[in-house]
Amino acid sequence: MLQTPPALPGMPEDEIDTPALVLDLDAFEHNLDTMKALLAPTGAKLRAHAKTHKSATVARLQASRGGAVGQCVQKVGEAEALAWGGIGDIIVTNQVVGRSKLQRLFGLTKLARVSVCVDDASQVAMLEEVAEAAGGRIETLVEIDVGMARCGVEPGPSAVALAERIAGSKHLVFGGLQAYHGRAQHLRKPEEREAAIAASADGTRRTVEQLRQRGLECRVVGGAGTGTFELEAATGVWNEIQAGSYAFMDADYARNLDAAGKPMSTFRHALFVLATVMSAPKPGLAVLDVGHKGVAVDCGMPLVWGMPDVAYVGASDEHGKLTWDGGARSLKLGQKLRLIPGHCDPTVDRYDWYVGLRGGRVECVFPVDARGAMR
Amino acid sequence: MLQTPPALPGMPEDEIDTPALVLDLDAFEHNLDTMKALLAPTGAKLRAHAKTHKSATVARLQASRGGAVGQCVQKVGEAEALAWGGIGDIIVTNQVVGRSKLQRLFGLTKLARVSVCVDDASQVAMLEEVAEAAGGRIETLVEIDVGMARCGVEPGPSAVALAERIAGSKHLVFGGLQAYHGRAQHLRKPEEREAAIAASADGTRRTVEQLRQRGLECRVVGGAGTGTFELEAATGVWNEIQAGSYAFMDADYARNLDAAGKPMSTFRHALFVLATVMSAPKPGLAVLDVGHKGVAVDCGMPLVWGMPDVAYVGASDEHGKLTWDGGARSLKLGQKLRLIPGHCDPTVDRYDWYVGLRGGRVECVFPVDARGAMR
Repeated sequence: MLQTPPALPGMPEDEIDTPALVLDLDAFEHNLDTMKALLAPTGAKLRAHAKTHKSATVARLQASRGGAVGQCVQKVGEAEALAWGGIGDIIVTNQVVGRSKLQRLFGLTKLARVSVCVDDASQVAMLEEVAEAAGGRIETLVEIDVGMARCGVEPGPSAVALAERIAGSKHLVFGGLQAYHGRAQHLRKPEEREAAIAASADGTRRTVEQLRQRGLECRVVGGAGTGTFELEAATGVWNEIQAGSYAFMDADYARNLDAAGKPMSTFRHALFVLATVMSAPKPGLAVLDVGHKGVAVDCGMPLVWGMPDVAYVGASDEHGKLTWDGGARSLKLGQKLRLIPGHCDPTVDRYDWYVGLRGGRVECVFPVDARGAMR
Repeated sequence: MLQTPPALPGMPEDEIDTPALVLDLDAFEHNLDTMKALLAPTGAKLRAHAKTHKSATVARLQASRGGAVGQCVQKVGEAEALAWGGIGDIIVTNQVVGRSKLQRLFGLTKLARVSVCVDDASQVAMLEEVAEAAGGRIETLVEIDVGMARCGVEPGPSAVALAERIAGSKHLVFGGLQAYHGRAQHLRKPEEREAAIAASADGTRRTVEQLRQRGLECRVVGGAGTGTFELEAATGVWNEIQAGSYAFMDADYARNLDAAGKPMSTFRHALFVLATVMSAPKPGLAVLDVGHKGVAVDCGMPLVWGMPDVAYVGASDEHGKLTWDGGARSLKLGQKLRLIPGHCDPTVDRYDWYVGLRGGRVECVFPVDARGAMR
């Protein structure tokens, strides 16, 4: 069942029902503007990753204000939610396996420009078969493994062979390379991230050149995330940047260090989970109404916004335990607090609605269109 | 947006779209029968916890086949989903803080018998105020802290004082005690669980007796979970058992040991996430289409059903990495596998539909009514 919205436009923040997913619109716009300004001199374009926000509304703002040329997604269900919400250019940065999912993907090509990735010859054959039956063509990218050790073929000849197979398929159009190094995003030190992306760039550049020698041009060379996008953009190898978290920022990305050894502050925390103190049974202990069903803990516990002395020390399913030292702090039953999620992507996926805040009031409420869209 | 069902009744398991939440109906019924048989001689009743299953359909089967006298929930939204689905007796085993949530709770008392917990005098006053305005009465339990160090007042005089305040409120009815020791559920050794519950029982028994001396009878003394319920049921102190996971079983509960030092096998694994191999880029590596958005990892990685040699070694948002040693095993692109979730409660909460399986075919598809019901 769809949940009802936790707020109405015009409400003060303190009246929002909790748990609620709230978006500080000023900070969000700052992040859009910052990314646009950082990418402008590089020539690389922003194709924001909707796996983070799952919202056609956020996607439209990333385009209109933030200069994004399109969106990328991981799942057909996410592509559907965006296409139905009016987004016209979508890359599925992932393998789509199984006939029914591929049929849905071809259904979408009538509504939007949609591309997809492969890393296996049998997938090229299946894609061609479904494309022929659907009477359409689809742009197909080769995913190369540039350090994730997950999906993707090796850069170089394996990738070229797969690209030639795509180019030789009547209903497929070779679109380029998907070259994303996810693990590099969270390396804490800048020199570690630089080394990782330098290696990714070598393999990607080499593959682009070998493709060119065979007469295959890459319309898209896509990859990068919030932790490393400045590095990829500076290489001239990637022409599309797939950052997602930059728009919201979470506690984990804020643990990345800059060249001065300080936590990265390029982007502001814009996304929060609003919580209520539901029990304050003894001094130094309070319990929130948000546990790990309401805030993802795969990248660590959330932080309490504006209260560095208070620690969210334990998440059970529906409860979050806060502790602190010293008698000066007191948290009262019914008091509302903002949590900075450890990881924004899976936190967003727990909610049906965003509550957009500005100046302490609810400015807008809009849906997480692709909430739960895992297929 | 609500997701579409991933299967139709009659389909073979292999045709179910993935990721999907699947329920082995034979194993589920075995678990219902086992719990009923284990509780029968003790006199304690089963009030199954819907925080696990979030489904009115599961709740009805727990009553009709499994002998449950009612359900418990953590959130008003869960109580709504059950009451709207025809469940007639519900305890909110939690504090409900804030006027709008309390108004929704009173709305429900017209549809079902609904009780709620408190652990603070100010909450009693707020509950009385809302009850008076709503023109109704509500049964109210005192939550005592029997080892969780989370919500709840201390057993003994503090609990008695709160109970007397409830009994003295015109629109509230004192209902008894909520006495749940969550941490004890996952203590691995039986002697550790016995010691924890013996301590919980002391405080609970003492509180029941002190209440009786003041003329306050407990209709309900509730608590216990899948890890310890036989201990609570044997004390004669608790009269309602709030186990939830017993119906499904997850990998974490299966790590509890029995008296012989072996993994507990009282209940069978009935709940799975069905996944597809979406990439098999090299020998000894396969990637599934289920990451931590699709299977909760707060209690560890999922296990691969029927393949003890294959390890799910890493969950990213939408990908799960499988590795294994030796050349005998081969996982093919498109192959479907069942995962045993590390933790069933938050895994269920990621899905809109259950797919009920029997004999390799889909027997039924039914909704996760309270999916996302955090408020």
